[in-house]
Amino acid sequence: MTTDEFRREMERGPVVFLPIGATEAHGDHLPLSTDSLQPEAMAVELAARMNGLIAPPVRYGFHSSTRNMPGTISVSFETLRGLAYDVITSLARNGVGKLVILSGHAGAIHMAALRLACEKAVAEFDIKLMLLTDYDIAAELAAEMEFGLDEGHGGFVETSRVLAIAPDLVKSRRTMGKFVDKGFMIVPDPETCYPQGIAGDPTAATAEKGERINEYIANRLCDLIARNFGEVE
Amino acid sequence: MTTDEFRREMERGPVVFLPIGATEAHGDHLPLSTDSLQPEAMAVELAARMNGLIAPPVRYGFHSSTRNMPGTISVSFETLRGLAYDVITSLARNGVGKLVILSGHAGAIHMAALRLACEKAVAEFDIKLMLLTDYDIAAELAAEMEFGLDEGHGGFVETSRVLAIAPDLVKSRRTMGKFVDKGFMIVPDPETCYPQGIAGDPTAATAEKGERINEYIANRLCDLIARNFGEVE
Amino acid sequence: MTTDEFRREMERGPVVFLPIGATEAHGDHLPLSTDSLQPEAMAVELAARMNGLIAPPVRYGFHSSTRNMPGTISVSFETLRGLAYDVITSLARNGVGKLVILSGHAGAIHMAALRLACEKAVAEFDIKLMLLTDYDIAAELAAEMEFGLDEGHGGFVETSRVLAIAPDLVKSRRTMGKFVDKGFMIVPDPETCYPQGIAGDPTAATAEKGERINEYIANRLCDLIARNFGEVE
Amino acid sequence: MTTDEFRREMERGPVVFLPIGATEAHGDHLPLSTDSLQPEAMAVELAARMNGLIAPPVRYGFHSSTRNMPGTISVSFETLRGLAYDVITSLARNGVGKLVILSGHAGAIHMAALRLACEKAVAEFDIKLMLLTDYDIAAELAAEMEFGLDEGHGGFVETSRVLAIAPDLVKSRRTMGKFVDKGFMIVPDPETCYPQGIAGDPTAATAEKGERINEYIANRLCDLIARNFGEVE
Amino acid sequence: MTTDEFRREMERGPVVFLPIGATEAHGDHLPLSTDSLQPEAMAVELAARMNGLIAPPVRYGFHSSTRNMPGTISVSFETLRGLAYDVITSLARNGVGKLVILSGHAGAIHMAALRLACEKAVAEFDIKLMLLTDYDIAAELAAEMEFGLDEGHGGFVETSRVLAIAPDLVKSRRTMGKFVDKGFMIVPDPETCYPQGIAGDPTAATAEKGERINEYIANRLCDLIARNFGEVE
Amino acid sequence: MTTDEFRREMERGPVVFLPIGATEAHGDHLPLSTDSLQPEAMAVELAARMNGLIAPPVRYGFHSSTRNMPGTISVSFETLRGLAYDVITSLARNGVGKLVILSGHAGAIHMAALRLACEKAVAEFDIKLMLLTDYDIAAELAAEMEFGLDEGHGGFVETSRVLAIAPDLVKSRRTMGKFVDKGFMIVPDPETCYPQGIAGDPTAATAEKGERINEYIANRLCDLIARNFGEVE
Repeated sequence: MTTDEFRREMERGPVVFLPIGATEAHGDHLPLSTDSLQPEAMAVELAARMNGLIAPPVRYGFHSSTRNMPGTISVSFETLRGLAYDVITSLARNGVGKLVILSGHAGAIHMAALRLACEKAVAEFDIKLMLLTDYDIAAELAAEMEFGLDEGHGGFVETSRVLAIAPDLVKSRRTMGKFVDKGFMIVPDPETCYPQGIAGDPTAATAEKGERINEYIANRLCDLIARNFGEVE
Repeated sequence: MTTDEFRREMERGPVVFLPIGATEAHGDHLPLSTDSLQPEAMAVELAARMNGLIAPPVRYGFHSSTRNMPGTISVSFETLRGLAYDVITSLARNGVGKLVILSGHAGAIHMAALRLACEKAVAEFDIKLMLLTDYDIAAELAAEMEFGLDEGHGGFVETSRVLAIAPDLVKSRRTMGKFVDKGFMIVPDPETCYPQGIAGDPTAATAEKGERINEYIANRLCDLIARNFGEVE
Repeated sequence: MTTDEFRREMERGPVVFLPIGATEAHGDHLPLSTDSLQPEAMAVELAARMNGLIAPPVRYGFHSSTRNMPGTISVSFETLRGLAYDVITSLARNGVGKLVILSGHAGAIHMAALRLACEKAVAEFDIKLMLLTDYDIAAELAAEMEFGLDEGHGGFVETSRVLAIAPDLVKSRRTMGKFVDKGFMIVPDPETCYPQGIAGDPTAATAEKGERINEYIANRLCDLIARNFGEVE
Repeated sequence: MTTDEFRREMERGPVVFLPIGATEAHGDHLPLSTDSLQPEAMAVELAARMNGLIAPPVRYGFHSSTRNMPGTISVSFETLRGLAYDVITSLARNGVGKLVILSGHAGAIHMAALRLACEKAVAEFDIKLMLLTDYDIAAELAAEMEFGLDEGHGGFVETSRVLAIAPDLVKSRRTMGKFVDKGFMIVPDPETCYPQGIAGDPTAATAEKGERINEYIANRLCDLIARNFGEVE
Repeated sequence: MTTDEFRREMERGPVVFLPIGATEAHGDHLPLSTDSLQPEAMAVELAARMNGLIAPPVRYGFHSSTRNMPGTISVSFETLRGLAYDVITSLARNGVGKLVILSGHAGAIHMAALRLACEKAVAEFDIKLMLLTDYDIAAELAAEMEFGLDEGHGGFVETSRVLAIAPDLVKSRRTMGKFVDKGFMIVPDPETCYPQGIAGDPTAATAEKGERINEYIANRLCDLIARNFGEVE
Repeated sequence: MTTDEFRREMERGPVVFLPIGATEAHGDHLPLSTDSLQPEAMAVELAARMNGLIAPPVRYGFHSSTRNMPGTISVSFETLRGLAYDVITSLARNGVGKLVILSGHAGAIHMAALRLACEKAVAEFDIKLMLLTDYDIAAELAAEMEFGLDEGHGGFVETSRVLAIAPDLVKSRRTMGKFVDKGFMIVPDPETCYPQGIAGDPTAATAEKGERINEYIANRLCDLIARNFGEVE
């Protein structure tokens, strides 16, 4: 898309998607790009459904618990917040009025950085802005898909979804992982909370289930966007 | 306590409690100091039980959703993080080796600020550090006390607890409040999520129930501290 | 005070007091809370006299010379300035138009942090703002009370005042302290300027003299506030 | 690549490429992703030649002169510097010892941000680090390819290269652009320096010339890397 | 002095003087450079006496009260602190072990910025460091020279000193100025504290008195330096 | 110049020059003040020609490659940018509408810091602002004066110019220096790029050539200023 095409696109007021991924250890069966693949796939699907645009994805996030695991590349809180704020406000200055930020990583501090950026941006610009991690929506399937509180990082949901999105990147040998609760302790070696590198049961994961989850997320997002932004296109 | 007394106290390795409160609108029946009263009461109880010390409380936090309501005094993310980091590391330099930070406010960004401060401190100092909001523990009573997902800011739990701690500060006229879900929208007027200023049912609150909750939190904290820090005193 | 009560209070335009204390070594006879006790007592007295309000006190300050003494908890310059700025501007947004900031600690850098925050706030908000340390006023009694240039941290004035405010917290065994002048050297071990931990003569301190000082400060502050803010109430 | 595969890759000491792109107006014939496409293509080619790895690309940079043109998304100097520093040092902590940062955008302030990040990183970590924009090398072809000082943003070189990399993204209708020199003035509307949005002559561009340029850059980079890092693989 | 000469000078361990001036309104009779002239003259005199070196002077400071007067150029607190810190530590890295920082401006926040920089530097580097404003020493002459508490900015002392240093820069027409006390109010228009732009009585100033003051300061500084740094040269 | 004189000068809208120098190793024949002498001499010449004003010079800059050489005093990027921004905006608030910033040092990061400050200032204030290093103009003489790409730091041009400005500060013994290209490597010991401390041939330098260069720069600057600011005086 050229500058001129972009300018013309802006006139019809499209929904813009900003996928925020991560580069993070996800156990021995999932790629480091797991948190990038998921929101990017969602953005592609949703942009197609509603004739939206996709901003270039961000592929680095903030990581606490996995920061010492090989392959995790973490940026600082300030960098992530600044990056999100700069991109959102640059988009707003360009006339973007409807923005959906989809984060593949759901860490609490990571999300707080994005949320602070969003709160500042909506206080300064006239932009409709949604911020969520698609995991927020996937969690609604817990009963139907029979996954529980143990499910988490690199587990059944993520493995199924990546199997549906990029099956070649998933190793066939998988083992369950159990999160070790530290009872509110803040420890310098948080990777010890994930002795297997993951939490949940990836052995139950299948591409079909992943498709079901992805479809569910896409549908729910469509509804949310229609409700929040008004009918689009 | 004088400088000399403090120095001698440090020698026995006491658990130190740092209560972090807030000054925040809590509906028409609860005082602005609601989030300060609860962790300070817990700190007093726990310090008494295990011969611990209490650091001077902080009474300002970070507020998003209630920031436009009368009486909410909010500090910035940087200020809160800096304040927590400075106090924690100053305590660590003074020889404090076991620290429990109890936050009365449980907002996600507020907690992220505290968590970032804690993670930096434990990476730099040899200190055992717990961070939690007593609401994390109170939530375990949901089934027993029959409060549900609607329960939240200024609702049944907080009202009961303040009735037990400082009954004179609670107004008798109370109404239910319902949180209005914005579907992941980041809005510039988040107070509209709380049309009644609160979420939950304060009409069911009693001092007895508050005592039960406070007792439960104190007991659970005692257990957690003993397990996390080793037997104390 | 609830959010609603606060809102109504704001309508009558009360004077608000923000006591800024500290947690700092004050010799072997005075408590670490010495700098908190004094401005909080003054705020209580003044608020009573003129039907004012008291904002939740801050109990941490910036400390240079005593920072290595046991029990001193120091926050950074940025934290103190940010905290003061955030609280002042949050109060101003809430409608507070007359604010008195009373600092119990009088260190030059500590006061510069507060002053920078105040200067920024008055440039941005329509608020009448006083900033002082009650020691500024106590110094006017030097001739009457016969204390001299040697008087200072933890000396006659502070000991007398705390004896009047919280006598149980003052130890009966006291010794004089002499400030060691370093001739404009900036040294990494500034605690060596206070070999006894204090400067001045606490042996001459009495509760009666403390009451006289406190009364004098309260009266002078009343006059200053009336003159600066116009007649109140 | 999984965490385990990454860990094993690190053992052989591969060259890692970090492509830094941009989202920037490049005239009416080139896509907004022009500055991302070029270094990413180079990274793919070079990684293949020397069995290197490619870190997830960054697709946002700092823009001065084109910042007001539709489609330019600019991040702040601090964000870009922080992002580069965080990613470099996170890679270094992961064991990366040979890193090549290829920037598609060549703005002076953009490059200064990257350079500051690099200088800080090499002062702190034992890492061999190259930083360049492939335009630095393309410029060596000026005589051979007969482009002159007028050549620049969105001109002959960039158009030829994108024609070779992603021909579908280049519009066939192209016009020359002339840079308007402001004589060292710093102006608030720097887009007026590019009345046609570009500088140089894209009408002379062909995919063949682009392939020649890309091949030249890849060869020169191979030589430089071999010389700088020692023989690799 | 060349790099080589500097290196050799460092071997004998000289005292280095860093004059910190200002560009500030000083009434209708004194130049904007008043605060630069004084410490630079002192540095020249002292360096001559003890074979010291003079670092390039800084000529911008932080100004509160005169910031709205024509000709005052003020830098921010952060800039001044950063500048002082960077220069001090760069000197220390170069082997400077004895440094005297002479500030011509004596504002409390200005001095706090310098002091914070100095405290950080001495905590990190092995350097003997003095920080003072020559006004601190001039004040000792109050009784002898018969100037009182009204004396201050642009008054008798400064006028006399500049008359002795650069008589051509002082206007012959002078009037007294009276500081207007605001009773601890922080006001947005602090220039109203100086209706005449100055405080004190410049009509009594003479070059002879200025020489006496300058001589006194130089002598006292010599003594202080000898005592603080050990005998030099 | 007094505050009153400054106020009156402002009424006629003069061009103001801000010389930004440096304190940096310049080989064994040139003084550390080389980068200060040149722009200050230009400012004096130009101010005389067009009845302009000179702001107090800055004598510290940002240095990468020479930062480890004896005598180089470097300030951080933030300090330099902040200093430039503060001075520019303080001048603008004082009514300065035409400002020329002449930097004696031409390092890319140093210039980026100044440029960022300038871009921010012109976005916020109505000021005409030029930023250049006089080396930018001197380079136009390359053919006439027969110096080539090897010419640089401390070489023919700088030596000639300082010979013309302050001949006593230049040593007669000079040797050529050759820049060692590191092929885009960012190295922790960048001084190794300058084995002789300089780049270029100072042996060919003469005062006459320096006068020619200085005259050329002054003339060109006059033209540029007249064109950029409109006819002045």
